Amino acid sequence: MPGYAAAVKLDLCLDAAELAARLVDMRSVSGEETELADAIAASLAGLPQLDLHRRGNALVARTQLGRAQRVVLAGHIDTVPVAGNLPARIEDGMLHGCGSCDMKAGVAVQLRLAARLTEPSMDISYVFYDCEEVASERNGLLRLSRLCPELLTGDFAVLLEPTGGVVEGGCQGTLRAEIVATGARAHSARSWMGRNAIHEAGSILDLLRRYQARRPEVDGLIYHEGLNAVGITGGVAGNVIPDECVVTVNFRFAPDRSTEQATAYVREMFSGFEVRITDIAGGARPGLAGAGAASFAAAMGGTPRAKLGWTDVARFDALGVPAVNYGPGDPLLAHTPGEKVELAAIRACEERMAAWLTA
Amino acid sequence: MPGYAAAVKLDLCLDAAELAARLVDMRSVSGEETELADAIAASLAGLPQLDLHRRGNALVARTQLGRAQRVVLAGHIDTVPVAGNLPARIEDGMLHGCGSCDMKAGVAVQLRLAARLTEPSMDISYVFYDCEEVASERNGLLRLSRLCPELLTGDFAVLLEPTGGVVEGGCQGTLRAEIVATGARAHSARSWMGRNAIHEAGSILDLLRRYQARRPEVDGLIYHEGLNAVGITGGVAGNVIPDECVVTVNFRFAPDRSTEQATAYVREMFSGFEVRITDIAGGARPGLAGAGAASFAAAMGGTPRAKLGWTDVARFDALGVPAVNYGPGDPLLAHTPGEKVELAAIRACEERMAAWLTA
Repeated sequence: MPGYAAAVKLDLCLDAAELAARLVDMRSVSGEETELADAIAASLAGLPQLDLHRRGNALVARTQLGRAQRVVLAGHIDTVPVAGNLPARIEDGMLHGCGSCDMKAGVAVQLRLAARLTEPSMDISYVFYDCEEVASERNGLLRLSRLCPELLTGDFAVLLEPTGGVVEGGCQGTLRAEIVATGARAHSARSWMGRNAIHEAGSILDLLRRYQARRPEVDGLIYHEGLNAVGITGGVAGNVIPDECVVTVNFRFAPDRSTEQATAYVREMFSGFEVRITDIAGGARPGLAGAGAASFAAAMGGTPRAKLGWTDVARFDALGVPAVNYGPGDPLLAHTPGEKVELAAIRACEERMAAWLTA
Repeated sequence: MPGYAAAVKLDLCLDAAELAARLVDMRSVSGEETELADAIAASLAGLPQLDLHRRGNALVARTQLGRAQRVVLAGHIDTVPVAGNLPARIEDGMLHGCGSCDMKAGVAVQLRLAARLTEPSMDISYVFYDCEEVASERNGLLRLSRLCPELLTGDFAVLLEPTGGVVEGGCQGTLRAEIVATGARAHSARSWMGRNAIHEAGSILDLLRRYQARRPEVDGLIYHEGLNAVGITGGVAGNVIPDECVVTVNFRFAPDRSTEQATAYVREMFSGFEVRITDIAGGARPGLAGAGAASFAAAMGGTPRAKLGWTDVARFDALGVPAVNYGPGDPLLAHTPGEKVELAAIRACEERMAAWLTA
């Protein structure tokens, strides 16, 4: 693994919370993860218990101890756009900053375990990947699953997304679509000669404002759907009645709907408009009845609950690897400017997982 | 006037309609007028009856015959963005293409008159300017009026904007404002933790959809106001509930409102939102009682009517030069993809104006 001599090296002897703060300060908005991926690769390359593989800004490091079981510990290294919340700040026992909760705290736990556990009781594959916070076709875990699925195999996987230290089962699916309002251009001084597509888009926003979320129970866990505009764009020039306005919506759907059913729901709701599906990823049912998930959940304690955000448990599910979400940080704070995570929760996560992995 | 030897030269011996077709083929969307300005400068530089001045992509060419009267003939050389309507096409006696009507037909008439009229009965200043179709602070005529107002002086001005060959008096004012809807960011998987600014902007679109246009009579002519969204933008990322959505509106107001009154009207209508005025230009009352306008209107024939689009008559009005709009082309077709102008109307405009200028 040559070429990382010049990269910043992370000090993996730091306490997990301190390490998380260093990771937050290494800005890694989706698409800009190279510096952080270089640093992780440079830091892991020196550990004799791991083999290391890199595909773009995604990394897999594995123990090869011939254990009967293999667990995959996975986390994404990218963040949503910075919202005036860098650099990292530690205050009142909390680490504040972009990506602190979602999910550099979890990545710090992965790195600590990778450095500490030279003789775990099961083989471990550590997966670090890019572009989780953007359209799914850019997702680094998807890329790994296409290019080298053999690196992702295992008996069970844990995604260290923030769950408040509670095991979360399954995940909701996510669909993005462009809803297109059309009109007819004209000079804005004689607007009645045209038809204003932005005004037409008001009907799309009316539908979104009237939307009532469904909260179904699936395999004993309660999900909570959502349908929102996440983007809108329209306009030709300051004196032209625009002929197109595009509203990008994001539908988060419970795992009792297939991707086909979710698509049909969105097409039906906006049936008066052109609907272009741009991005879709199915959910995953809770799956807590599986042996690996049950053993892990018992070791971590607490009562499992439904995962509302889409996570790559769905991608592991599609690869045939049972997976759960478990990591430090309150998921309600993810993607907010006030994102933060308890230092104690990061340390507790590391200790519980280290105990389970060496039992 | 060195430096134009290498520029494309226009053949000013062409028929005005043919010349207009050549001008349409020289793409000159606002901000990209250099090639066309170079060509006009190169073509006029060889005419001994004219002195020539250039400021950026704005040009003034003047006869200096010591006549008792001076008339200003002005036109803009830029167009709105191309909408699949280039190159120029001549069919069924019409010239089709971006800018054909607004206002390369008028510019062709100016150029023909400049080349033909070596001994006009009044001195003539030909003004060609850039960036009329964008925010008023970029307007080339405004720039000339600030840098060298002496080049724009005259007893009367004619703007050759499309009026269907009818003299149009006054013009409406135009105001652009950003209306800002705000919210609170959150992860779109837990949208109920935030407040969606795009959904909030639905209330702005509701106001626009309910708007009823006023049609006041001013100095005997009927105006027709309009209030429209001309742009909308919002969104942070595909999985974030957005905290801001900005609707850009364009208010076209009759000349019985001052700019202050127009501003107050827009602020009042959107009183629940932040309103940022980004661009404003007052209208001009008809002014057809003036001697210059009356003589010109009589020579051109027909019944004067109200100008609905904002034109630089307001800018000449502010410089103390009475001005009217008169040019070939149907103003209702300006800024539409199907923009076109009758070849016969271009020729008729040239002939009527040549007759008036040599009488």
